[in-house]
Amino acid sequence: MYKKHNFGAGPCILPSSVMEQAAQSVINWNGMGLSILEVSHRSPEFEDVVLKTQLLVRGLLSVPDHYSVLFLQGGASTQFAMVPMNFLAAGKKASYLDTGYFAQKAIKEAKLFGDVEVVASSKDRNYAYIPGQFNIDPQSAYIHYTSNNTIEGTEIFDFSATGVPVICDMSSDIFSRKIDVSNFDLIYAGAQKNMGPAGMTLVIAKNEFLDRAKKEIPSMMDYQVFRDNMSMYNTPPVFSIYVAMLNLLWLKDQGGVSGIEQKNIEKAKLLYAEIDRNPLFYGTAEVEHRSRMNVTFLAVNKDAETQFLAFAANMGIVGIRGYRTVGGFRASLYNALPLSSVEVLVNAMVDFERIYSDKTVLELK
Amino acid sequence: MYKKHNFGAGPCILPSSVMEQAAQSVINWNGMGLSILEVSHRSPEFEDVVLKTQLLVRGLLSVPDHYSVLFLQGGASTQFAMVPMNFLAAGKKASYLDTGYFAQKAIKEAKLFGDVEVVASSKDRNYAYIPGQFNIDPQSAYIHYTSNNTIEGTEIFDFSATGVPVICDMSSDIFSRKIDVSNFDLIYAGAQKNMGPAGMTLVIAKNEFLDRAKKEIPSMMDYQVFRDNMSMYNTPPVFSIYVAMLNLLWLKDQGGVSGIEQKNIEKAKLLYAEIDRNPLFYGTAEVEHRSRMNVTFLAVNKDAETQFLAFAANMGIVGIRGYRTVGGFRASLYNALPLSSVEVLVNAMVDFERIYSDKTVLELK
Repeated sequence: MYKKHNFGAGPCILPSSVMEQAAQSVINWNGMGLSILEVSHRSPEFEDVVLKTQLLVRGLLSVPDHYSVLFLQGGASTQFAMVPMNFLAAGKKASYLDTGYFAQKAIKEAKLFGDVEVVASSKDRNYAYIPGQFNIDPQSAYIHYTSNNTIEGTEIFDFSATGVPVICDMSSDIFSRKIDVSNFDLIYAGAQKNMGPAGMTLVIAKNEFLDRAKKEIPSMMDYQVFRDNMSMYNTPPVFSIYVAMLNLLWLKDQGGVSGIEQKNIEKAKLLYAEIDRNPLFYGTAEVEHRSRMNVTFLAVNKDAETQFLAFAANMGIVGIRGYRTVGGFRASLYNALPLSSVEVLVNAMVDFERIYSDKTVLELK
Repeated sequence: MYKKHNFGAGPCILPSSVMEQAAQSVINWNGMGLSILEVSHRSPEFEDVVLKTQLLVRGLLSVPDHYSVLFLQGGASTQFAMVPMNFLAAGKKASYLDTGYFAQKAIKEAKLFGDVEVVASSKDRNYAYIPGQFNIDPQSAYIHYTSNNTIEGTEIFDFSATGVPVICDMSSDIFSRKIDVSNFDLIYAGAQKNMGPAGMTLVIAKNEFLDRAKKEIPSMMDYQVFRDNMSMYNTPPVFSIYVAMLNLLWLKDQGGVSGIEQKNIEKAKLLYAEIDRNPLFYGTAEVEHRSRMNVTFLAVNKDAETQFLAFAANMGIVGIRGYRTVGGFRASLYNALPLSSVEVLVNAMVDFERIYSDKTVLELK
């Protein structure tokens, strides 16, 4: 049975070699005679892990020197509140682009701290696209984007100039493609897609922007506290950071972000081509906004949906059921998912088309 | 080399059997053909882990039915802010007992939200004791205790009746001894001592008390959100919760909290007896307030301190250097530390006394 083809949306597949090193380190890390789970976060060995992980993030994303790289807890959901808590003063306004479920969650939290202007929304067509034209009030504290919409299967490929500080939730596509960090004032990402296991959050922020944050906020919600304490104001999520380091080392070996981006483009192209070809399925996102990370598609008929889930499960394919509010399928093609797994899924779709008997469906598409 | 005697203060030793199961699950969990690091937190298998961990907490601590058991992130440091954010309204007062470094951190965060009354402090004698007599304003929103002071080596064994809601940071002694949960309105604890690896926080709270929390606070800082979503409003720290489950199963096998409490008493008694007997060392905490979890002691002379650290390291003893503000030694005797490790430390102290040559020191004690 082992190994399954894991298309799960997150926590998600990580490279087998990373799992093996992580498992070994749970028994005896670094020849220290201690498990990675029992080492002090204040030990020089673990401080070295934090430093190396920061350097890997800097190297892989070409993070400019005047940016800080921080590791936090609480996932993107905590960032939804921490961003306005730090940067949206009462009576001031922040701008948000509404591109789906998680963008809406970010908007909800921001409203606790100040005024929120939704500059554009794609809710009118079930978030199947990224709004192209919108104006941002130059008085806004910042504009907030969600670069990849995990549930709706859309992704922003073009961040146009805005004139106000840019904050971006990159939870589900960071490290999957090249980005120009200098276009952003603050980037955050829950780790559990392309960075590592659940339990840590990455923040990359321009120092000058962090310096402008509000004062008098709780220490654990204060980016400056994390910056001033090398992300170890308190006990950090030791194991999650360690596995992230292993995973980023693996990514470096893959040719870094440029190398993996080419593979990700190839994987997405292969699957979208089959969705477009196969009369039993159709994609939900508009073609030019299709995510390379989360491929959302539906069966033309409900009966085929149920049958295909079972058919695919028999081939060791897991994690392709769509999010409950969207239905259908979602195949997540994160960095560690090999092209061979996508080929297995595509072949399953081809085979399923051949054996699926309800001929009436084929005429519906 | 393997296995070291790990007296580290946290993250700390966990049972070897737990490490082995955890390592195996990083490769292939539950026969699923997936690593525990890549399973969806929404999978029935992982939902079962969360449920089982909650039930283990309930069983081991006899948590009454009208209390909720929650798993969060951010450690006790996040709770320092979350408690007043939920329960201390602006213009109202909360009471705190100042018993050391972490109590002071809790006080600092509370001051952001309302008035803080420090009912008593042991700062006058370097936090070497627990203040015995104090009055609490019956109008206080709550009284906050730190049950075990990890750095100063003191522990509260008697929680007297107070008349106001009782909140307790039990990070470093929860699961080490029997407690009567019904004496508390809210208990919190960072996991990385007796519960599991770093990266999760346990909260046990009376439902009626949670119902009184403020509204309009960020979702990830809102206890009710965690209660309403089975601690999975967003992606939880999957691996940390899973290892906590393994560790609590181990604890159950040890005779539960009563069984481990007897072993913890025995370990502490053995080490304190040697500290009191050995002319080279002396304890820092007052005898009746000595912590069973964190045994703090000093060498009579600085030279002996440096030499003993090296001497002990040669015997595979790690993690006994005292906290930087206190100096000397701190031997943490958490649940998973076997009596045999304490015997190794005591023997090292006996041997060191024999070989230590500076006779003048012996006369100083």
